[in-house]
Amino acid sequence: MPRFRLRLWVHFCAVYIVSGVVCYLLYYEYSYISSKRIAHYYSSKPQPHQFTILVRGIPVSSGSSCSETAEKFFTEYYPSTYLSHSVVRRTNKLQHLTSDAKKLYRRLAHLKSETNPQRRSIRDGFCGLFGHKVNVLDHYGKKLETLEDNVRMEQLSVAGKEVPAAFVSFKSRLGAAIALHIQQGTNPTEWVTERAPEPQDVHWPFFSSSFIKRWISMLLVVVAYAAVTILFLIPVVIVQGLTNLEQLETYFPFLESILSLTVVSEVITGYLPSLILQMFMAFVPPIMIMLSSMEGCISFSQIEKSACTKMLCFTIWNIFFANALSGTVLYRFDIFLDPKEIPGILADAVPAQASFFIAYVVTSGWTSLLSSVLFRLSPLFCSIIKRPFSGKDSDELKVPSIPYHSHIPKVLFFGLLGITYFFLAPLILPFLLVYCCLGYIIYRNQLLIVYAPKYDTGGRFWPTVHNSTIFSLVLMHIIAIGIFGLKNLSLASSLIVPLPILTLLFNEYCRKRFLPIFEDYPLECLIKKDRQDQNDPTIAVFYNKLSTAYEDPALMPIRHPRSTDDHNSPLLQAGV
Amino acid sequence: MPRFRLRLWVHFCAVYIVSGVVCYLLYYEYSYISSKRIAHYYSSKPQPHQFTILVRGIPVSSGSSCSETAEKFFTEYYPSTYLSHSVVRRTNKLQHLTSDAKKLYRRLAHLKSETNPQRRSIRDGFCGLFGHKVNVLDHYGKKLETLEDNVRMEQLSVAGKEVPAAFVSFKSRLGAAIALHIQQGTNPTEWVTERAPEPQDVHWPFFSSSFIKRWISMLLVVVAYAAVTILFLIPVVIVQGLTNLEQLETYFPFLESILSLTVVSEVITGYLPSLILQMFMAFVPPIMIMLSSMEGCISFSQIEKSACTKMLCFTIWNIFFANALSGTVLYRFDIFLDPKEIPGILADAVPAQASFFIAYVVTSGWTSLLSSVLFRLSPLFCSIIKRPFSGKDSDELKVPSIPYHSHIPKVLFFGLLGITYFFLAPLILPFLLVYCCLGYIIYRNQLLIVYAPKYDTGGRFWPTVHNSTIFSLVLMHIIAIGIFGLKNLSLASSLIVPLPILTLLFNEYCRKRFLPIFEDYPLECLIKKDRQDQNDPTIAVFYNKLSTAYEDPALMPIRHPRSTDDHNSPLLQAGV
Repeated sequence: MPRFRLRLWVHFCAVYIVSGVVCYLLYYEYSYISSKRIAHYYSSKPQPHQFTILVRGIPVSSGSSCSETAEKFFTEYYPSTYLSHSVVRRTNKLQHLTSDAKKLYRRLAHLKSETNPQRRSIRDGFCGLFGHKVNVLDHYGKKLETLEDNVRMEQLSVAGKEVPAAFVSFKSRLGAAIALHIQQGTNPTEWVTERAPEPQDVHWPFFSSSFIKRWISMLLVVVAYAAVTILFLIPVVIVQGLTNLEQLETYFPFLESILSLTVVSEVITGYLPSLILQMFMAFVPPIMIMLSSMEGCISFSQIEKSACTKMLCFTIWNIFFANALSGTVLYRFDIFLDPKEIPGILADAVPAQASFFIAYVVTSGWTSLLSSVLFRLSPLFCSIIKRPFSGKDSDELKVPSIPYHSHIPKVLFFGLLGITYFFLAPLILPFLLVYCCLGYIIYRNQLLIVYAPKYDTGGRFWPTVHNSTIFSLVLMHIIAIGIFGLKNLSLASSLIVPLPILTLLFNEYCRKRFLPIFEDYPLECLIKKDRQDQNDPTIAVFYNKLSTAYEDPALMPIRHPRSTDDHNSPLLQAGV
Repeated sequence: MPRFRLRLWVHFCAVYIVSGVVCYLLYYEYSYISSKRIAHYYSSKPQPHQFTILVRGIPVSSGSSCSETAEKFFTEYYPSTYLSHSVVRRTNKLQHLTSDAKKLYRRLAHLKSETNPQRRSIRDGFCGLFGHKVNVLDHYGKKLETLEDNVRMEQLSVAGKEVPAAFVSFKSRLGAAIALHIQQGTNPTEWVTERAPEPQDVHWPFFSSSFIKRWISMLLVVVAYAAVTILFLIPVVIVQGLTNLEQLETYFPFLESILSLTVVSEVITGYLPSLILQMFMAFVPPIMIMLSSMEGCISFSQIEKSACTKMLCFTIWNIFFANALSGTVLYRFDIFLDPKEIPGILADAVPAQASFFIAYVVTSGWTSLLSSVLFRLSPLFCSIIKRPFSGKDSDELKVPSIPYHSHIPKVLFFGLLGITYFFLAPLILPFLLVYCCLGYIIYRNQLLIVYAPKYDTGGRFWPTVHNSTIFSLVLMHIIAIGIFGLKNLSLASSLIVPLPILTLLFNEYCRKRFLPIFEDYPLECLIKKDRQDQNDPTIAVFYNKLSTAYEDPALMPIRHPRSTDDHNSPLLQAGV
């Protein structure tokens, strides 16, 4: 047997061993995280979102209001556990007004603390250049008053603009779980229940309630997502053009003299492509967040989770597949319609791009870890650019939240690179190892010290990580089948075939064994926690808080304390 | 525009109109049947299966029995609604014994009524030919006694052989629904709940409880199903050989003289193929039932529903696709891996088989309606063949149940033929119309007068019918795309493309709008029915019945009343 064949068999064994080890680790980790999730639930204090559900599609009859319908329904069917509800209202306009009022109030407060009397007066003409000099405090004070009057007027009018959706709170976790899991009415598109997010996590602006509207917007988002994904191929093609310098030279002959310089060509082929890619990739997470929020999610957490999945598919498709295949078959897009050919094509194309991906790990992985995660350069630039325009009031420090949707897909993509390239180009492994070590230290630091979580994920991102790793494994197996086929080792090629099947079966088992834990808490936990609460003396206070927890913050009476002498009227304490 | 093109545009319009009409009818019917389902539930009396769930995977600790564990769990977590439970036991051996005892008892009763004293004695040697003459009554009486002793012994020993599964009954429908819908324990593979079937519908023999065992047997069944489906291609190929006489002649030249007779060739090409197919198809439903029962279903209704789906896919694949494609591409099985080619291939192959399918409607459709549904020929033959072997005791009349799994796929297959061929070969429509009219009359008669339903389907077969019709529509669209492509009418071909997408979206909407109603009853219904029961004076009696409804019939004490003088001991009334 020639030496080369023997080495291929070593690769073959490596594929089996690595798959086994990865699956074992996945199983162990899934089990560990699910036990953590349960333990965290047991140790948690009573929280509003544990007792509350969101009900959409309340069938309002012409005679009564949405609030009355909901009250009647839940007092009838949940007489012992129903606590209260708060109907959602359409407050987009009001939200703009209140945020304007808040900004103005902050500016006023800032001006009051200003010691320089010069700065306390402006001209009331165009751009503050012409017109009479007026006292700024008076000017802004009047403006704020008008704005606050508007807010109060709008609050009154909004009270009638009910959306047929409500947050319904129960006296026990079990009550909420029953309402969540059992279909309420005979029409499944009415009384649609959904887990409520934490109160501060609710995304009020995009509140669509009708079943059909949400469904259509979901479809539109899918179409938009596909369009974005396809449009992104343009920068990918440009990047690929830079890697294949010869191709570039044939298209643009006048560049030949410049490209023949070693330094230029090295920079262009080595670093420029992945830097350009990374620049373009920076625009993608906000777009994905926008798309996800148009889907009709009701909380930032859901939006971020959905954007995370979108981002992951986007990254794998546009960075991995588009880059790997562009040299060979990007223009023959229909290759994916012919499943038999895929292993061969991947086996042909993927190893050829090893050097690009090694460079990608360094430029995108290491650099982004340092620049975007550790030093947080982009928020820094943003604030430097914003400052001249937005005045002094942006000085106040906001603790950043963790952008799961942009970080998790990135980390998972390096996992995919590691799993698919470990037997094609083992040179990538030390680079990835450095990435992982750096990442561990930096992320640990950031998570513990810098970031403040906006909401409790409850480990719900783990299934995404698990699925992505399973996908990487299966992709690796397909490439391996192709490689062994290309090298005329058809025995090894067919011996790999059971491996993806076994991996998918393993995944299926994990889905059945662990996924339900991540979707909801079991009855055992709910009842145990409910019984703990019964002995808790503070539960009455909690119930009081619970019944107002899901009020729209835009509908709250404005409370801007004014300590100046000329504004000591209690006007602003009036509620709606 | 040539006349031929104009006619194609007429076909194009027909495709759109028929799709619209079919979708409208589907929507209307889905809504009608779901309202019927709810109304039927409202009008039903309290029934054991409405209050009961099946719990599998009870985690039995070493110290306690399964029954104790279940009792403890449900009294702890459902203190107000838990009523009783009955643990399942492994009774395969016992079932054989009791059925033997029953047969023997019946024979004995038959002999007692026999007036001819000659027949009351047999010889006790080999085949009843040699040995002493003994009184038959004595002989069988003794045999029966031994058997009954064995049964009682086995019943005692079986009491220990608990399967970690139990039927758990609740005092209210809501209690059962809560236990059904909310995950019970922290491990999702333990305390797995499932809707309980009606007591007489439980399929005791194949009672596997472990999650893993059921999962593995499911996988094995899938593999076996695929194998059966592929093996069935052999008769299909033979049948196709008969349709293409020229091919047959080239393979077997010595047949040429026989085949040149007009009568022979007409019979062979016209009727023989579909008769042979039908003969082979008669073996398939029992095989599908066997496969489905190996899946770990707990009731005949589930087995039949699963077999119905299997049978439907099998019929569509092996009758429609295999027959339509065999002439052209049966040997190029991999054609289905190239989705782009499919419309063209179907458009090429499907119209060519129109005459075969018209013959199929007559031979298989009309004939089977008359022979198997109306005259029930196969049960007749079976009983004629069985009679000499099984003695006189098979005389007793059993009311037949409706074999949904063999009839529904057949009817749906003719629907598929109608939808796909209406614009290719409209000649098929009158034949189908006759089939439908005949079918309506015959099935109405059989359902009202002949068949006795074994269980209440609750309309749960409708989603299968709906899905099958949607599949037929999409298949028709794909063929239409291919046809218009072949006839160089690419505008029409691309104008058809939105149609399958719209049809699938319509299907998705129906799934969301109606399917949940067929999966379970909404909380509104459950609570209304529960409140009705509270005012019902007979409910206490019902609860008593409920707690013993799900006892394994094999474990019941044997009660064979004996009226003869020599057996008046009360021995058989002794319970376990």
